[in-house]
Amino acid sequence: MKYSTVERPTLLLDEFRCRMNIRRMVKKARKKKKHFSPHFKTHQSIEIGEWFREEGVHSITVSSAGMAAYFASAGWRDITIAFPFFPSMIPALQYLEKSVDLRLFIHNPDHIQLLNQQLVNPFRVVVELDPGYGRSGIHYSKSELLESIVNCCSETAKAQFVGFYIHDGRTYQDAVSAVDRGKEVLGILSSCKSLYPEASVIFGDTPSASLLTDFGMADEITPGNFVFYDWMQVQIGSCSLDDVALFCQLPVAQIRREMDQVIVHGGAVHLSKDFLREGDRISYGQVVDVSDTSVTLRDGFYLLSLSQEHGVLRIPAGAALSESVTLCPVHSCLTANLYDHYITTKGNRIEKRILS
Amino acid sequence: MKYSTVERPTLLLDEFRCRMNIRRMVKKARKKKKHFSPHFKTHQSIEIGEWFREEGVHSITVSSAGMAAYFASAGWRDITIAFPFFPSMIPALQYLEKSVDLRLFIHNPDHIQLLNQQLVNPFRVVVELDPGYGRSGIHYSKSELLESIVNCCSETAKAQFVGFYIHDGRTYQDAVSAVDRGKEVLGILSSCKSLYPEASVIFGDTPSASLLTDFGMADEITPGNFVFYDWMQVQIGSCSLDDVALFCQLPVAQIRREMDQVIVHGGAVHLSKDFLREGDRISYGQVVDVSDTSVTLRDGFYLLSLSQEHGVLRIPAGAALSESVTLCPVHSCLTANLYDHYITTKGNRIEKRILS
Repeated sequence: MKYSTVERPTLLLDEFRCRMNIRRMVKKARKKKKHFSPHFKTHQSIEIGEWFREEGVHSITVSSAGMAAYFASAGWRDITIAFPFFPSMIPALQYLEKSVDLRLFIHNPDHIQLLNQQLVNPFRVVVELDPGYGRSGIHYSKSELLESIVNCCSETAKAQFVGFYIHDGRTYQDAVSAVDRGKEVLGILSSCKSLYPEASVIFGDTPSASLLTDFGMADEITPGNFVFYDWMQVQIGSCSLDDVALFCQLPVAQIRREMDQVIVHGGAVHLSKDFLREGDRISYGQVVDVSDTSVTLRDGFYLLSLSQEHGVLRIPAGAALSESVTLCPVHSCLTANLYDHYITTKGNRIEKRILS
Repeated sequence: MKYSTVERPTLLLDEFRCRMNIRRMVKKARKKKKHFSPHFKTHQSIEIGEWFREEGVHSITVSSAGMAAYFASAGWRDITIAFPFFPSMIPALQYLEKSVDLRLFIHNPDHIQLLNQQLVNPFRVVVELDPGYGRSGIHYSKSELLESIVNCCSETAKAQFVGFYIHDGRTYQDAVSAVDRGKEVLGILSSCKSLYPEASVIFGDTPSASLLTDFGMADEITPGNFVFYDWMQVQIGSCSLDDVALFCQLPVAQIRREMDQVIVHGGAVHLSKDFLREGDRISYGQVVDVSDTSVTLRDGFYLLSLSQEHGVLRIPAGAALSESVTLCPVHSCLTANLYDHYITTKGNRIEKRILS
């Protein structure tokens, strides 16, 4: 294959599998009659964004004003910045509102007033609810604060209240958690809907969007990682290994047969330091074989430690080796973030944004 | 200060402290009569490289052929690629040898023959010894293999045997380990020197280079991280907090007083996922106040978790807060790798390389 010899760690993208992942999620959202605003923080590529557009997607989610500006430059107009608004974002939002219909995550009535003064155009307000996960947003039990934000929107000329959003990272454990937590999130969102019938309710993670067969009263889903999936999602059960669309091709730098180890050029700066516990071992990535028809596990080949540029790969005794290995990364979002381009399995170069 | 309001996570560099760190290590090497080839993988900046040149440094260490090419473009001629040679590096080395006098890490006699065929100019050979740390190199006890490499060099026209190198990551624990492991490494290198009196012996980590008062028979030191130091090095005891020269300025996105938490814009894509265990807690970074005269700990302010873009900061109850926080990163090498520039505390922009 073209990519068996690489000079450096290289992001390998299977375009067919990636397009299938996009198509499947678009169809699922359409079948369930849910609006679809996929999160683009995973791929961060204008070109891959076009594959979504070809499937009829026209609204997207990003995680910073900078990422919004990148996709705005490719003509995206309906963009949600799924990160709590903070005042020093304002200059970037003033630039963005010239071409983008902004949806912002706001957790403070004062910020609504501030944006009303500082922006020229109407802006949409989403309230992020914390379902108890503790990352960001307003705890869903704080009904007074929620009401004050909703009221502030109705009293403020440019603010348009949209609804509520929840991301619950506790779905990232296993299929049972993904489904159970997903249902809990839908339960919280349904309660909001009964209090605010006009509100849209939005939820957004890959495990529950992949595994739930019923999105209940949700109006919209915003998953992101599903575009590539990864070894963590395989372990959770959100996808099969055959759905994974992103790999790292890593040069073999040194073979240490006496230790059943291989040193690869592929460290924390090429993969990120995310790891998985698999039984009694820790893995920084799983070696696979990729062909057009299948992705196959190479049993017993996994990354057991990482330093800045070195990866130490465990291999079975006497295993066959070539000049490079194909790694299924633990967390494709963080791995993709470290590169400025993808090389497809057909040998095409696809540019992407760097620097979040 | 200029940097108290930032629109996005920003790398903040204290040029004065950085230049002091460079000067101190240059002086130490000179006083001990050791050659100094600092590792440039931490800062990855041509401009910061010039600060080394101003102190009389003329040979450097890097961790990939791509990084060598970047510094070669700024006129560096004496470059060690401190990563095991692998054959698909050859096109990059053929380009580099036009302007650079290469030193390569080679662990296989066949590779010496291959390079002899493929390169035009002489190349220098360093053998990396594994002191039992298990990352890369040849275990120091494998005397036959070591001898075959040394002999191969003497029989091969373009190969010039230089000597032995050891990096022992086990120094990255505490000051006692740094000194003890550092002495063990020097012991192994001394044994090599007695077998191969012509060989240079080289060692290279920041904790032992900072803490050892005697470099024994070593001919050369190659530390890298000392240029900035970081929270890990403060914990090890390699430096004081006042020596740290690199910080992240992170916007405050949401204050959650009821949880004694602040959500900052600063996640795994801005900091890396390296963490430290401090007693019974895990920290992804420590908040500090930085002035020209001191770096001061903000007690009880530390990053307790990270997701892709969000950081969850623990704060003391009722603590005063401004629009951003200044974070002392856990591991400056991995954090700096995620940005394409530094902003100095005086407000100057300094470009750097991205993508290892």
